[in-house]
Amino acid sequence: MAEFDLIDRIRSRAATRGDVVLGIGDDAAIVQVPAGRQLVVCTDTLNAGVHFPLDTAAADIGWKALAVNLSDLAAMAAEPAWCILSLSMPADDPAWLDGFLDGFLGLAAQHAVALIGGDTTRGPLSISVTAHGLVEPGGALCRDGAQVGDDLWVTGTLGDAAAALALLLPGAGLPALKRDEDERGRASHPASDPPSPLESARAEAIELLRPRLDRPTPRVAVGRRLGGLAHAGIDISDGLLADLAHICRASGVAAEIELDALPCSPALARAFELRQRRVLQATGGDDYELCFSAPVRARESIDALAVQTATAITRIGRVIAGEGVRARDAGGGQWHPPRPGYTHFAE
Amino acid sequence: MAEFDLIDRIRSRAATRGDVVLGIGDDAAIVQVPAGRQLVVCTDTLNAGVHFPLDTAAADIGWKALAVNLSDLAAMAAEPAWCILSLSMPADDPAWLDGFLDGFLGLAAQHAVALIGGDTTRGPLSISVTAHGLVEPGGALCRDGAQVGDDLWVTGTLGDAAAALALLLPGAGLPALKRDEDERGRASHPASDPPSPLESARAEAIELLRPRLDRPTPRVAVGRRLGGLAHAGIDISDGLLADLAHICRASGVAAEIELDALPCSPALARAFELRQRRVLQATGGDDYELCFSAPVRARESIDALAVQTATAITRIGRVIAGEGVRARDAGGGQWHPPRPGYTHFAE
Repeated sequence: MAEFDLIDRIRSRAATRGDVVLGIGDDAAIVQVPAGRQLVVCTDTLNAGVHFPLDTAAADIGWKALAVNLSDLAAMAAEPAWCILSLSMPADDPAWLDGFLDGFLGLAAQHAVALIGGDTTRGPLSISVTAHGLVEPGGALCRDGAQVGDDLWVTGTLGDAAAALALLLPGAGLPALKRDEDERGRASHPASDPPSPLESARAEAIELLRPRLDRPTPRVAVGRRLGGLAHAGIDISDGLLADLAHICRASGVAAEIELDALPCSPALARAFELRQRRVLQATGGDDYELCFSAPVRARESIDALAVQTATAITRIGRVIAGEGVRARDAGGGQWHPPRPGYTHFAE
Repeated sequence: MAEFDLIDRIRSRAATRGDVVLGIGDDAAIVQVPAGRQLVVCTDTLNAGVHFPLDTAAADIGWKALAVNLSDLAAMAAEPAWCILSLSMPADDPAWLDGFLDGFLGLAAQHAVALIGGDTTRGPLSISVTAHGLVEPGGALCRDGAQVGDDLWVTGTLGDAAAALALLLPGAGLPALKRDEDERGRASHPASDPPSPLESARAEAIELLRPRLDRPTPRVAVGRRLGGLAHAGIDISDGLLADLAHICRASGVAAEIELDALPCSPALARAFELRQRRVLQATGGDDYELCFSAPVRARESIDALAVQTATAITRIGRVIAGEGVRARDAGGGQWHPPRPGYTHFAE
């Protein structure tokens, strides 16, 4: 299968929209931005082994490649519209491509996003997506609008994706399962033995948590309605503390969060001791939840928004004067994470 | 240097424009598309060792990554406006990044293109650029408008980039230098000997031709003015015959080109025998010249455009009824290339 067959395969499956003047198949695509709207553009690249485990299913890779971009649009309070896909593959593999498109186009369909163009090349597996959204002028949610006295909120639950990664790569210095300590010092046993309690607990936790790593939910509906409610927003890709620090830096403020308020999934609570899961919740990346600041008067509207969108939205702290992000434990003491969050190229 | 330092390094050097509402540094960029314009979007990815030789200078990689995208916009007759850069690097290397930005932002400045956002990730060296341009509604030049009786034209000269690659990778089954046959059968000589005539000729040809591989010139000014003159257009990235075949397929027509009419650089003519350079000119990729069809009545305007833009524009054939692309040699006989052009994933 040559490059143009791959492109035909993609084109035959891509949906369109009324504002797409020219889709896949020419040197470029043409779209009509509605009058009175501004264009919001973002890009995110996923590299095999860096942004997803090498064993990730093709459909999950496709889903995630678009999801992380829709998450950026959601964090800007933008309505997603069109996307561009650049796909580097080491070899021609139609079955893999079909799986990838299942995930990618499945998520695109959920949000009426049209795939309008792209590029397919030979190279190490890498997916680069550019997503386009629309906002009313002045309606975007940026990082620099947080004000002293604002509440801080997050959607969904935190730490699940990082927990899944910790379980999949247990040698990476990340927290271990609750049961690990019970097992410590025991001799290894033959593979033919029934799974140990630790192995069973690990398998169960991976089953529950891995979908959060592989198929993050971009908070598009919540993000869209935050434009008029929130002062500043970001999506959590590198970890709550690290991403919240971006808001603080851009807004010239500080933030104080209550560790005990951070939303926790039942699966995470079951698998990890409190001390371990705090690290995951406060610093784990890849959750793609939204973190935003909003004035106290918006509390009722935000609670209503949570109900309307069937999305948990939890108040986790407040914006204060100063700089930096402080996390407090139940006793009111300051908590220091082992590391603030994930950055590429860091030591 | 962490990811955010890299981003700061890029941001500090990127120019902006009046229509950029929010540039690098938030979850997404925001731009204002002027009223009465359509948005043209394209993307092209360059992977190390696939789209450029591994020894390519950082500045040339930066230049080419943007140039191939501006070339797509030119082929659509669009005016370039903004771009997004996704950069995967195997390791943090500020000196390499500075060189890359020299080439990338240098070309961007020539065309008043603003770099408005992007992504930096760890991974094998790969550069994915999405470029945005503007056209009046209906003013874009597409592949499907060629009409029987149209002239066929190309800008610049053909085959130079492929010739440079052939000289750099002489074992790849591509044509050899004129002097190769003189050398055939001679014993190899020690490296300390003075260079042979063949070695000197090769070094000279590489010096003259390699800039065409490393720093292609996107034909932006020509492309912009073709909107009102031409019927169909494409940029030559995979080779003239292959790319012209896209126009024919999309337009439901055939094309006939005169091999002797294909424009040839002095360097190419000097280095390669006629038979060899025909293959390079007709099927060599990476030239990023424009190929377009236009009605006969536009000949004078196109000649004037060549003068105004200081760009060679050469008539190479015509659009006829039927399907496929035929190349004729001086005697009027049909010429068959060893292969039609470059495609990824092909055998």
